Amino acid sequence: MTLEEIADFIGINCQEKKEITGLNTLLDSNENQLTFLENKKYLSDLKNTKAAAVLVTSENASEVPNGTIALICDEPYLNLAKISKLFAPNVVEMDGEKPLIGGGTKVMPNVYIGKDSVVGSDCTIMAGVFIGDNVKIGNNTIIYPNVTIYRDCVVGNDCIIHAGTVIGSDGFGFANTKDGKYIKIYQNGNVTIGNDVEIGANCAIDRAVFKSTIIEDGARLDNLVHIAHNCKIGRGSILTGQVGLAGSTILNAYVVMGGQSATAGHLEIAPFTTIAARGGVTKSITEPKKSWAGFPLFEHKQWLKLQGKISNLLK
Amino acid sequence: MTLEEIADFIGINCQEKKEITGLNTLLDSNENQLTFLENKKYLSDLKNTKAAAVLVTSENASEVPNGTIALICDEPYLNLAKISKLFAPNVVEMDGEKPLIGGGTKVMPNVYIGKDSVVGSDCTIMAGVFIGDNVKIGNNTIIYPNVTIYRDCVVGNDCIIHAGTVIGSDGFGFANTKDGKYIKIYQNGNVTIGNDVEIGANCAIDRAVFKSTIIEDGARLDNLVHIAHNCKIGRGSILTGQVGLAGSTILNAYVVMGGQSATAGHLEIAPFTTIAARGGVTKSITEPKKSWAGFPLFEHKQWLKLQGKISNLLK
Amino acid sequence: MTLEEIADFIGINCQEKKEITGLNTLLDSNENQLTFLENKKYLSDLKNTKAAAVLVTSENASEVPNGTIALICDEPYLNLAKISKLFAPNVVEMDGEKPLIGGGTKVMPNVYIGKDSVVGSDCTIMAGVFIGDNVKIGNNTIIYPNVTIYRDCVVGNDCIIHAGTVIGSDGFGFANTKDGKYIKIYQNGNVTIGNDVEIGANCAIDRAVFKSTIIEDGARLDNLVHIAHNCKIGRGSILTGQVGLAGSTILNAYVVMGGQSATAGHLEIAPFTTIAARGGVTKSITEPKKSWAGFPLFEHKQWLKLQGKISNLLK
Repeated sequence: MTLEEIADFIGINCQEKKEITGLNTLLDSNENQLTFLENKKYLSDLKNTKAAAVLVTSENASEVPNGTIALICDEPYLNLAKISKLFAPNVVEMDGEKPLIGGGTKVMPNVYIGKDSVVGSDCTIMAGVFIGDNVKIGNNTIIYPNVTIYRDCVVGNDCIIHAGTVIGSDGFGFANTKDGKYIKIYQNGNVTIGNDVEIGANCAIDRAVFKSTIIEDGARLDNLVHIAHNCKIGRGSILTGQVGLAGSTILNAYVVMGGQSATAGHLEIAPFTTIAARGGVTKSITEPKKSWAGFPLFEHKQWLKLQGKISNLLK
Repeated sequence: MTLEEIADFIGINCQEKKEITGLNTLLDSNENQLTFLENKKYLSDLKNTKAAAVLVTSENASEVPNGTIALICDEPYLNLAKISKLFAPNVVEMDGEKPLIGGGTKVMPNVYIGKDSVVGSDCTIMAGVFIGDNVKIGNNTIIYPNVTIYRDCVVGNDCIIHAGTVIGSDGFGFANTKDGKYIKIYQNGNVTIGNDVEIGANCAIDRAVFKSTIIEDGARLDNLVHIAHNCKIGRGSILTGQVGLAGSTILNAYVVMGGQSATAGHLEIAPFTTIAARGGVTKSITEPKKSWAGFPLFEHKQWLKLQGKISNLLK
Repeated sequence: MTLEEIADFIGINCQEKKEITGLNTLLDSNENQLTFLENKKYLSDLKNTKAAAVLVTSENASEVPNGTIALICDEPYLNLAKISKLFAPNVVEMDGEKPLIGGGTKVMPNVYIGKDSVVGSDCTIMAGVFIGDNVKIGNNTIIYPNVTIYRDCVVGNDCIIHAGTVIGSDGFGFANTKDGKYIKIYQNGNVTIGNDVEIGANCAIDRAVFKSTIIEDGARLDNLVHIAHNCKIGRGSILTGQVGLAGSTILNAYVVMGGQSATAGHLEIAPFTTIAARGGVTKSITEPKKSWAGFPLFEHKQWLKLQGKISNLLK
């Protein structure tokens, strides 16, 4: 789709015929992608963007670097949302190749596997599983019944996905119009799961808005865990029952999160961090190998001491 | 079913042949419905009931208004539970018409659509979806794989329901017998979802005991959200991951609830209220447009101040 | 499998030909089972074991009782994990008898019922349900759509299992290697559910590592409840929405847990205990019929008083 067509779609004028292949963030966009600036906090990213074009208000248009075209509009984020629909793949592909299923793989009844998908060898795909279009699954992986894997997702070798889990559902993203309507930001990324990952029952792992939600090798997720879009779960991390992660949060390697603990979005948590059960993380944790607890969060020892102080109030 | 038959079923005497069509609350019952009074708190409702008959203890029988028949018994709530089974529709209808599927609607394999159900035009019903009997689904709605929609529920136009979500499961309702047995209160209501609603993966939205659990136009629910019976989610409300609502709570328009926040039952929350992540609401909120946090709940600014005071205890 | 073969599998020497039929804890092992001692806390259990053999470090080998063979190794727990795979049944049985379905039972389309399974009479098994191999289901039980019941589990009479719930998924168990790899402990137990149990939508109830996760007669579980491996939910207990139990915790009869409340693992909670919404239990509760709240947990009245004291900090 050309920039001209995109501009036309949102009702602004631009005669550039440049072909745009997708949407992305300021820093991750390549020379064929369109990006946006809504929040002045990211002005420095704007200066470093390599994007073909950027949706930007007139106020910030002068900061757009050479080589990037400014699409000047009043509500860049809302327009990005509208445009995201243009790049959304079909919910169900009509064309494409029959799925490839590797040798030794057992596919039970009532399984759906979409177009252009590949399942490796020696897997077990149990009854009621849905594997969407263009999904790649490695070797020796077990997918338990009634799991749903949305289109374009990737699952590695030697994984176990327990029943009812959903991989690749849409991240929770929308822009507001002035009259209180929400415009969906189509989540055109995917979920990429490494090797030797085990995921419990009835989890929900959202696909990325751009690029990938990532679960690295060796991670272990218990039941009813919620992973929002664009998170990264580092190698060997352990997330126990009912943990919830808001969007774009990065767990580095070997982070352990206790039951019902949670993080806010856009955080980074240092390797070998432990969050106790019910801990609620609202700021990034930069120092590795420490234990934290509570909401607000304290170092675990401090939290225990604080609870003693609090209970003294009863005396 | 006549009142006489109902009375006979619970072992009390009543010779009225009046036809009863269902059960309802004191205030919502019409002249063909049966209601009950267990808790004296609702005596004023009893005085205003239009019900055909009311299950009531002898102590409160004198308060039953003219035109309503008193069915006097020791345990009105327990008897209501027993009677609720008489009005429960079949789990699976044997008779009824084949479902109607609108033009342009794609129904994938391994989908079940029940008797007397109607799916509008231009919908996508993905593999593994269960749509029960007498369900109505509007136009241009996408239902992702392995979603279950129980009988009698209604979903509007332009909705997106993500994989694994359950709509219309029974509300959590039962009465106790004196010897510690629970008698199920059959949940004979439904769930009604408006237009332009998006619901995340692996949510659970219970049907009403009477009437409807309601999700109004434009609402957005993230993953793993729990909505108990008879709640109402107001227009444009946003419920993020792992939020839980207890029964009969009303969110007015544009309420925002952060991750893992929750409400007790039978509350009403004013329009444009924001509940921060982990907030726990135990009283109704009457003033609109305020932000709240914590459990117990405080105004957000007060909560932040309080956390500062609490952490000072460590000094 | 003989002890010699097992020892060989983990690279230690033992020439005993004794046939081993499975793995179990120190106290529950019978004379044909293998057990392990990792933590000195259980030395007294070691002295009382009736196991055929025990994985034990050289340091503790002298405490192994007569009649039990010591398999001396450096990392007993890690070796137990490795051995657990040898005793894991097939994910899907190839042989075995066709399932038996009782009279009056309705099985809807797109249902899978495994080998050697038995479904009683007058049940309703709705579309999309998966019932694994060697499952036993009693009479008059309703299983709603897209429920998954893993192999070897047992469900009683007069039960209702709501849509999307998973019964018998693997407990969250693994041992660490020194180089940061997790070795799965195969969960060779099952889930056993009594009579007259109702379980809400999208719950996850893990199978036991050894023996059974147990849900006793009359229990009621709401939606999105997480029960970890080897828990026992006592008769008539009530677990409301989004409750989570960590492994091996025992609720005695008629325990009530409010919304989003949780327990740590390896606890025992006295009969008729009430845990308020959001309560977090980290120690066993020995006195019956008391009410508790908060995290850390206090008696409910004390917790309310404490919240008053805390809010006074704002003055």
